[in-house]
Amino acid sequence: MNPGTSEINFVSALDTHPEMRSVLCLFEGVVTGCADGYARMAGKPAASLLHLGPGLGNGIANLHNAKKAFTPMVNIVGQHAMRHLEYDAPLSCDIEGLAHPVSGWVKTTTDATLVAKDGAAAIAASQSPPGQVATLILPADTAWNEAESSCEPQPIQKPNPVPSDRISEIAHIIKTKENVVLLVGDHVLRSEKLQRITSSIAKKFGARFMAKWFGARIKRGASRPIIERLAYVVDQSLEILKGTEHLVLIGTVEPVGFFAYPNKPSLLAPPAAEKHVFANLNDDVEAALIALAAKLEVSDDPGELAILDRPALPSGKLDPDKIWESVSALMPENSIVSDEGVTASRIAGPLTQNAPAHDWLHVTGGAIGQGLPVATGAAVAAPDRQVFAMEADGSGMYTLQALWTQARESLNVVNIIFANRAYKILQVEMKKLCDNEDGPKSSSMMELDNPNLDWVQLSQGMGVPAVSVDTAEAFNEALKRGIEQSGPCLIEALV
Amino acid sequence: MNPGTSEINFVSALDTHPEMRSVLCLFEGVVTGCADGYARMAGKPAASLLHLGPGLGNGIANLHNAKKAFTPMVNIVGQHAMRHLEYDAPLSCDIEGLAHPVSGWVKTTTDATLVAKDGAAAIAASQSPPGQVATLILPADTAWNEAESSCEPQPIQKPNPVPSDRISEIAHIIKTKENVVLLVGDHVLRSEKLQRITSSIAKKFGARFMAKWFGARIKRGASRPIIERLAYVVDQSLEILKGTEHLVLIGTVEPVGFFAYPNKPSLLAPPAAEKHVFANLNDDVEAALIALAAKLEVSDDPGELAILDRPALPSGKLDPDKIWESVSALMPENSIVSDEGVTASRIAGPLTQNAPAHDWLHVTGGAIGQGLPVATGAAVAAPDRQVFAMEADGSGMYTLQALWTQARESLNVVNIIFANRAYKILQVEMKKLCDNEDGPKSSSMMELDNPNLDWVQLSQGMGVPAVSVDTAEAFNEALKRGIEQSGPCLIEALV
Repeated sequence: MNPGTSEINFVSALDTHPEMRSVLCLFEGVVTGCADGYARMAGKPAASLLHLGPGLGNGIANLHNAKKAFTPMVNIVGQHAMRHLEYDAPLSCDIEGLAHPVSGWVKTTTDATLVAKDGAAAIAASQSPPGQVATLILPADTAWNEAESSCEPQPIQKPNPVPSDRISEIAHIIKTKENVVLLVGDHVLRSEKLQRITSSIAKKFGARFMAKWFGARIKRGASRPIIERLAYVVDQSLEILKGTEHLVLIGTVEPVGFFAYPNKPSLLAPPAAEKHVFANLNDDVEAALIALAAKLEVSDDPGELAILDRPALPSGKLDPDKIWESVSALMPENSIVSDEGVTASRIAGPLTQNAPAHDWLHVTGGAIGQGLPVATGAAVAAPDRQVFAMEADGSGMYTLQALWTQARESLNVVNIIFANRAYKILQVEMKKLCDNEDGPKSSSMMELDNPNLDWVQLSQGMGVPAVSVDTAEAFNEALKRGIEQSGPCLIEALV
Repeated sequence: MNPGTSEINFVSALDTHPEMRSVLCLFEGVVTGCADGYARMAGKPAASLLHLGPGLGNGIANLHNAKKAFTPMVNIVGQHAMRHLEYDAPLSCDIEGLAHPVSGWVKTTTDATLVAKDGAAAIAASQSPPGQVATLILPADTAWNEAESSCEPQPIQKPNPVPSDRISEIAHIIKTKENVVLLVGDHVLRSEKLQRITSSIAKKFGARFMAKWFGARIKRGASRPIIERLAYVVDQSLEILKGTEHLVLIGTVEPVGFFAYPNKPSLLAPPAAEKHVFANLNDDVEAALIALAAKLEVSDDPGELAILDRPALPSGKLDPDKIWESVSALMPENSIVSDEGVTASRIAGPLTQNAPAHDWLHVTGGAIGQGLPVATGAAVAAPDRQVFAMEADGSGMYTLQALWTQARESLNVVNIIFANRAYKILQVEMKKLCDNEDGPKSSSMMELDNPNLDWVQLSQGMGVPAVSVDTAEAFNEALKRGIEQSGPCLIEALV
């Protein structure tokens, strides 16, 4: 939360509701990212408390990511008292207008007696399959007026059953066709059980088991199925999907390039490939996959699983590969990786595949500034697990205030900053798209070295102990210490 | 600017357009605040460059402030190539939906050949009286496709003339009625000439010359008219306006409380007072005031002006009063004050009234996180003037990334952080509104002392030299050094 005057009665009520935990963040982009990270790990919604339109505005980028992750979340956004709305007060703003682009459910409560009912509706709505952002706007007078009513929890919408003829149809395709890709969405990625079922089907019939480049929460690492992934780079994804004749969509939609480029297609699957929707996003993917496996007479035999095979600790001059090797060598079992390494993360998949079992949280909507807040929220949800925030320096600066909340709540987060002192992804994209890649003015818009950011001071300034390293040996040591100690720390990795 | 892939061709073009200055900011809230500060001081629009919906989202809070300041501004927001929009790419987002609540003009360009025309239209629209935010959304293919067309600057809408019978009517009221308040808006506040005209009218007929609590840019200090101001606190404003029988609105609307409170009115003027609209926001306020003065046979005789009367340098334990006294004692003539001191600024008006002539920039929309970015943009617009960012610690954390841009551009900004280590305004509001003001949980949501923010490290981490002080003597010394040196600095004032 980051409350203001319009929400002050709500804040005041916290002291009479010990069952609610309130976590203060110093910027709303941290609040919403934190709520997203919490829900991804807890599997149930967190609520954010935001101050009017501008507070919601500050939270929009990470709400966009949460929307794309199908994260259940309830935003409580304060509003002026109803009678105040007709005047042009400084903070007057079209809050509903701002909320709609990032919310699946939006409502303004008009009377104190309706708060309980609307609140219950928001909580239920947030959990409508596959999960969504629900924004409840509460005018100040709905908090300060009397409300005698209360409300029972409201029923949560059930996922739609997948019709049996569709299951038969897809079973027939998998059984009889060649070059089949089973493309899964977040339902499967977050469930070891569904991963095993899908992998068992793929193995038995020679299909490929594949996911997009991003996932809200991926269970992976040792003893879990190995899932092929599409790439950020369009040409690589085209190559990966080359030869696909049947694309079976399991709780996801057709894959599309992260960006469009001249003379490259938007859609990544071959145009000749047939697309088959097995389960929509709001379908009961679990029941459907179980039924499909039964239909196909597939037992639990997922084929080759990732083995535990930690790399040797790296040495010498530090680079992103060595950082991932070191993390893979040292991460405790059941760790959580919040990944916003951007260019430094392209190679992370194979380098961590054989680390102990862990959860991986991607930036789902491409809005940078997610990594530190999502790590923070994940650590609130899972206090007994080690969290790693793998963060690029450029994107880390968007919501660096998350570090303060980590210190305040003594969260077990090791923040690793890939300090390449550039918007490197833009340098790469400019080379792809423009002729004059070396122009001094345009180049300088992608350089973060004038002045250099000092992440040790930034971190310590918010109460998180920090160290800067430029060798693999020093990185290994810092990482070991960070894992051993409780509470947060930060490693500025000069790469 | 803070560009992304969709805007990369635009960035690349900077090298062939030396007449454009590009300033990199590490977060879009800094970008939009910076553009606002630039326009307030330069009197002409700056453009922002933002990356898709999330980039715009991050800029919304300061766009809200810019909207309320009637700042002319052009946002260029990237968008996916048109053909990419039908797919669910990660960054797909209803950009127009996000733009409308903070923009007076929104357009998506659909073809490369229309960019020049739409760009010229955006620039003209931004300057429609009284000034507004114009948002132009440019799909990536409009930047990478060929565009043979160019476009002349488009005509800017003129302010509406105030009809002569309205001028006569108001002249009659001023001449014949008692207890008249002349309430002025930003047109008058930013113009010494219009201040003198209004003050001359007020003096001759015994009316009061008054402004709201906030102004986009107020010319004030020695040798300028003294303008009464309404207060943040509703009861104080009610008291100030008590007895008003005629409220004449000169380029502004009726004053309203910053927030609503139970059992307090929203509108601040006495219900019995007659409201008279002299000039609307988009009227030609200057011509109308000149005509009014002529009608009333008022010459340039504004009455008592503020005299130059610097206070003695303060001593002893530091507090906000002493900080303002020190600033008033040391500020060079023609300084610019970006004021986001929140509770520490309540007393700033009288304490700086007799400082040398200066410009004062308020937070116009109540969205915190404006102070450092607006100071940064003001310093870009006015490189020969000393800028002071008077910043509360809580609000400063919202957009602290502005410091890096100050360092990068060697801007003459002295950043003064009122470090009271609390959201003090919320503590005050909670006392007004709630019974259980001392609840430990709710209280802790307003305390920033666990852990303490170390502004010296935060500032140095972004390349801005900084010092922490807790005595007036040390503050005076730090302020002197900051003014003498070129480039930015920061003073953490423990109060």
